[in-house]
Amino acid sequence: MPESQPRHPEQPEHYLDRILNPRSILIVGASKDPVKRGNRAIQSLVSDHYTGTIIPINPREKEILGFACYPSITDAPGELDLAVICTAAHTVKAVIEECGRRKVKGAILLAAGFSEIGEQGRILEDEVVALARQHGVRLIGPNTNGMFSARLGCNAWGLPDIPRGPLGLLSNSANCVTSIVMQARTHGFMGINTMLSVGNQADIEFHEYLECLGEDPDVSAVMLYLEGFRNAAAFREVARRTTQKKPVVMYVAGRTSEGKRAAKSHSGSLAGAYAINRGALRQSGVTVVERLYHLYPVAEALSLFPPMRGRRVAVVSEGGGPLTVAADALVEQGLVLAQLAQRTQARIHAVVPNATAIDNPVDAGGGTDPRAEYYGPIVRAILEDPAIDAVLIVGLLGGYADRFGDQAAPAEHAVCAELGAMMREYGKPVIVQSHYADVKTQSLRILREAGVPFQRHVEIAVQCLACAADASAARVRNADASAPRVRNADRATAIPGTTPAASPEAVRLIDAALAQGRDLLETEARDLLQAYGIAMPGHRLLRSPADAADAAAYFTGQRLAMKVVSADILHKSEAQGVLLGLQGADALRDGWTRIAANAEAYHPGARIEGMLVTPMAPRGTEFIIGITDDPQHGPVMLFGLGGVFVEVIGDVVFRAVPLAPADALDMIGSLKHPSVLDGMRGAPPVDRDALADLLVRLSRIRELHPLIAEIDLNPVIAFAGGQAVVDARVVLRRNVPANA
Amino acid sequence: MPESQPRHPEQPEHYLDRILNPRSILIVGASKDPVKRGNRAIQSLVSDHYTGTIIPINPREKEILGFACYPSITDAPGELDLAVICTAAHTVKAVIEECGRRKVKGAILLAAGFSEIGEQGRILEDEVVALARQHGVRLIGPNTNGMFSARLGCNAWGLPDIPRGPLGLLSNSANCVTSIVMQARTHGFMGINTMLSVGNQADIEFHEYLECLGEDPDVSAVMLYLEGFRNAAAFREVARRTTQKKPVVMYVAGRTSEGKRAAKSHSGSLAGAYAINRGALRQSGVTVVERLYHLYPVAEALSLFPPMRGRRVAVVSEGGGPLTVAADALVEQGLVLAQLAQRTQARIHAVVPNATAIDNPVDAGGGTDPRAEYYGPIVRAILEDPAIDAVLIVGLLGGYADRFGDQAAPAEHAVCAELGAMMREYGKPVIVQSHYADVKTQSLRILREAGVPFQRHVEIAVQCLACAADASAARVRNADASAPRVRNADRATAIPGTTPAASPEAVRLIDAALAQGRDLLETEARDLLQAYGIAMPGHRLLRSPADAADAAAYFTGQRLAMKVVSADILHKSEAQGVLLGLQGADALRDGWTRIAANAEAYHPGARIEGMLVTPMAPRGTEFIIGITDDPQHGPVMLFGLGGVFVEVIGDVVFRAVPLAPADALDMIGSLKHPSVLDGMRGAPPVDRDALADLLVRLSRIRELHPLIAEIDLNPVIAFAGGQAVVDARVVLRRNVPANA
Repeated sequence: MPESQPRHPEQPEHYLDRILNPRSILIVGASKDPVKRGNRAIQSLVSDHYTGTIIPINPREKEILGFACYPSITDAPGELDLAVICTAAHTVKAVIEECGRRKVKGAILLAAGFSEIGEQGRILEDEVVALARQHGVRLIGPNTNGMFSARLGCNAWGLPDIPRGPLGLLSNSANCVTSIVMQARTHGFMGINTMLSVGNQADIEFHEYLECLGEDPDVSAVMLYLEGFRNAAAFREVARRTTQKKPVVMYVAGRTSEGKRAAKSHSGSLAGAYAINRGALRQSGVTVVERLYHLYPVAEALSLFPPMRGRRVAVVSEGGGPLTVAADALVEQGLVLAQLAQRTQARIHAVVPNATAIDNPVDAGGGTDPRAEYYGPIVRAILEDPAIDAVLIVGLLGGYADRFGDQAAPAEHAVCAELGAMMREYGKPVIVQSHYADVKTQSLRILREAGVPFQRHVEIAVQCLACAADASAARVRNADASAPRVRNADRATAIPGTTPAASPEAVRLIDAALAQGRDLLETEARDLLQAYGIAMPGHRLLRSPADAADAAAYFTGQRLAMKVVSADILHKSEAQGVLLGLQGADALRDGWTRIAANAEAYHPGARIEGMLVTPMAPRGTEFIIGITDDPQHGPVMLFGLGGVFVEVIGDVVFRAVPLAPADALDMIGSLKHPSVLDGMRGAPPVDRDALADLLVRLSRIRELHPLIAEIDLNPVIAFAGGQAVVDARVVLRRNVPANA
Repeated sequence: MPESQPRHPEQPEHYLDRILNPRSILIVGASKDPVKRGNRAIQSLVSDHYTGTIIPINPREKEILGFACYPSITDAPGELDLAVICTAAHTVKAVIEECGRRKVKGAILLAAGFSEIGEQGRILEDEVVALARQHGVRLIGPNTNGMFSARLGCNAWGLPDIPRGPLGLLSNSANCVTSIVMQARTHGFMGINTMLSVGNQADIEFHEYLECLGEDPDVSAVMLYLEGFRNAAAFREVARRTTQKKPVVMYVAGRTSEGKRAAKSHSGSLAGAYAINRGALRQSGVTVVERLYHLYPVAEALSLFPPMRGRRVAVVSEGGGPLTVAADALVEQGLVLAQLAQRTQARIHAVVPNATAIDNPVDAGGGTDPRAEYYGPIVRAILEDPAIDAVLIVGLLGGYADRFGDQAAPAEHAVCAELGAMMREYGKPVIVQSHYADVKTQSLRILREAGVPFQRHVEIAVQCLACAADASAARVRNADASAPRVRNADRATAIPGTTPAASPEAVRLIDAALAQGRDLLETEARDLLQAYGIAMPGHRLLRSPADAADAAAYFTGQRLAMKVVSADILHKSEAQGVLLGLQGADALRDGWTRIAANAEAYHPGARIEGMLVTPMAPRGTEFIIGITDDPQHGPVMLFGLGGVFVEVIGDVVFRAVPLAPADALDMIGSLKHPSVLDGMRGAPPVDRDALADLLVRLSRIRELHPLIAEIDLNPVIAFAGGQAVVDARVVLRRNVPANA
């Protein structure tokens, strides 16, 4: 992996590249005092052997640390790429104007005292941004710790001993960057290419940095610590493209209300609802990790792995408990401990006739002396097995020489080199968990040279594989996604029965309701869904008990559900406004009376539009499906487990709209309790394709009708042959002109 | 903490102590060949400066590695504590007999080839154990990697460089021991006092080792890697006593079926159902961790912490993301980010007037230069706040000198020493997460000397606190538990309305059913529960549709549930054998017809005993409560979320019988989704005390009637004032004489 060599000349430059890898740096507010930031900034550039030009700016000095000092930016010589502004917030406007006049390309605003401190700071920040835009100066920060980029040795951060390598790192928190740099320094083999504390993202935002790192061939993966986006949709778009080329691994902070509170006091940015962030990011191909300390190892491993074509993993060790730990961790992380082919088992048996186990997991221990050379032929046999997508080796490898003496070294060294060659030859991920990972033995250095990731702990190695499987699957899902709006129109025509353009009937229903200043009635919501090819059970709206005979005749022979239609009653079940299993006109009339009484008890004076009568849904599994608006991500689809425990269990998955069919299937498969899909209590499995079709149609409806604020289908009862939408609610945007 | 000093003379010796810390060691099968185990065993004793007598046994040698060699055990001089048997399985019987004649106290059987390889090995193992018992020789293993104990430098394992310290370590897997020793060597500050690979536990089992380490004042905590018990009940008893004195931290392997399969091929022991193991162990005060790599850090931290009186934690840092990560992790692990008192906040404000946040979490950063000396007065103010039970410091502490230069060192060193003094002064846990933990700075060495644990990663530091809170709570719960059978009898009389002796009515019901070779009918099960003070809803059993009028009159004015009573129909709902909301004789007669038809469709020819009619249960939350038999733990109680999704969600908690009231409350609070207890959809909270009372009474019933195999209450509907047992099933032990 190239580290800090000049950029490939044929690669066109991203517009931020010259700012992130500046050939000249102004230090505005340079100082002779070694504890001041304006001096330390120069020190760290020098100590990291910055190969560009350092230009201190200070009207009172002639020279600082051996560099000629200029009284003002205007006086600075040559082409000016980046200004590191070390002065306080109130000086920044004047400095930016001066930068603008001298065509400085970018500026790092280190000062705090902007939007993160409140309204006054926000006004100042807006003024600074306006000035910068007027002058064509791009801004990093404010309220940032700065930046490090390896290519020219630009350490504009001040953290010493940053190991150089191919990883990018973008963060809302400088402190978390320190944590990750220390991981890279003490346990990693992969250093940093570019790292950035994004600060308030007043001008340049996450997605622009990501795009630049995505296009940089020296960057193998990008890590992000996120507390909040300014433009989530733009980020998703860039992430979708970037993850086609390299892994993007993210830790999303503020997933609990307490975490959000902590995040708020820290960087002033809004942490989005965690489940929505996670779903929308996964859809864009981003690998979201749940532990901060997983960020670095996962990025390292994903940088090194070839694509992982499935979730079937084989585990190999020489004796012992780590195999058990690995088996548990694999299953818990949704990977599969697949059975090895008979032929593979026979080959393993030939290598280690006394092995304790030759099926997966493979325990090569048992009756033989510890010998690292077993791993070569065993792993080769497994990699040639088409039923296996990746190999995990656990236990002592990397420590044989340390543990059993120097005579074990040659064989171990050979195996370590061979594993890398095999990983490339067969194009399947190989990862090693070694008890000796932190000792950094010679064997492990060879393994690293061979490009094979290794981890100290079993569960983290497994996490790397699970993330690799997810990331590879997302890459395949998004492979055709160059411009999603275009793709979207294509997609709409590709779904049988989906209209690429708005249905006139749907437009009429929405306009009529908006004209009356109300949402769609349930009957209208049903008509709207039907207009987009969503099959709805037949219904009759009883306007009075006198309509009962009619409805009974219409649904003759069927058991019916009856529910109250009232703008005053949102939760019909809670109000005991639903009756099930009615049959015949008498039962319907009696039902009206009972529901009306319940409704009155629940909400005295409730205005009842009527009673909706539908045939009873077949037995099946209840889901909740809907569309809502997220302040960060815009319209998002939700899909979750329905029924009485839905709030308690909260098994709900989110994706951003628009939703491709592959996204919909992935969404359905992402439930925490996916076994509901396999059929409850002996029922046949639900029809995932039918559910996915429903999700995609809803997504299309929301795209075609931006005046729809929310869609709520709850419950949807799914069964073997499809599903029944039992209840539909469509909420419109109020206070918006009908012709918006 | 004393490390490897001689045992306190006044402490009476545990009967295993002389075997685990032998003053003389026979090496049976000693060899001059340096690669043979019989030579390496002597090498490692020498290199660990074993202070006892080493006696090689080999008829063909006079001297090995400078030690006089004896032709047989019979010829060996002096008192003989331990024999390390390096010879193959088939020789072991003869060796044990010889050990017996010379009164050798214990023997380590290193050889494999016993019960772990199958039936033939099991027979040999049984013979060896019988011989050993006959001769009074205690056995470690077979199929073990041996033992290390620090007091006399007894390295009978062969692993080099085992760091010495106060931790005990017992394991089914030698490989996992290596993993933990490497953690202690590279990242820990606490070494090993005694470690044991228990092998097949043919003679000495986990609980005996644990008891010995529990009584050893040099051992501060015991770590266990468990694949299976031989005697779970004995282990629980010892654990309950041991955890009153020191932490016992355990990783339980084989929690998935794949993991179990891997465990089986490894050590031949049965991995119990994970949820049952975890519940029963928690009840005994054991700290069960979910990741192997948590075992060591948690044991280390719990060794150092004072008791943690509650779950309220304050987090302190100087700026940044780690606070957000900590807040998320704390909440997710069931800890509370409690609000600081106004007075505490004022004190913090006085120390750091520009702090970004002075409530919890406390962010001392913001406008000030980084200064470690802030931590002292801030942490003191927090520790004096009665609303806080523990303090977590995250971020840079431990790295100030490394990061900001030597001038930062004195203040940082002082703070590190002060934190230990404060932890002891206020008796509240303090833990530090430091980005620099793996650099082992001078500051962190001072922190360690001061007795304060530190971790590299936020989430693991939080895990340590969560485990400390759990362990302290368990210690309080079990404080009165010296001998549980006695306690049990006491407890029974202490529960109002609980009979300490068996109810004659219950005995009659059980005997009558057994005489007929059947389980209790539901009506009988209800009577049995009622005999032990469990309030049951009234019921009527309809023997034919003609009984409908009678039942309707009995329950006049109430809405009723009707369900089929048939030995052929286990799942009544699935068979559509339940009808709800019936009222009046006609509805009951009609109900009989419908249910009978459904039953016939579900199970043609099903024998119907009748229909049970009960009043509708009030609305509430459904639970499943039961007692079943676990192959390892014996009778266990289960408590879980009921309803249609129960199998899918699997929110079920287990405890061993007998169950104390405090255990029952802990059990109820241990649901994965405890918010169900707070009342669903606006309903008032369920009555936890009433549920606990029900659990304790059931436990008592099972204790008094060992002929009951299973009790199944499903559902139990809980509400604000108590609960209704809607369905009760009692299964009896068959093929057992009625007078057993």
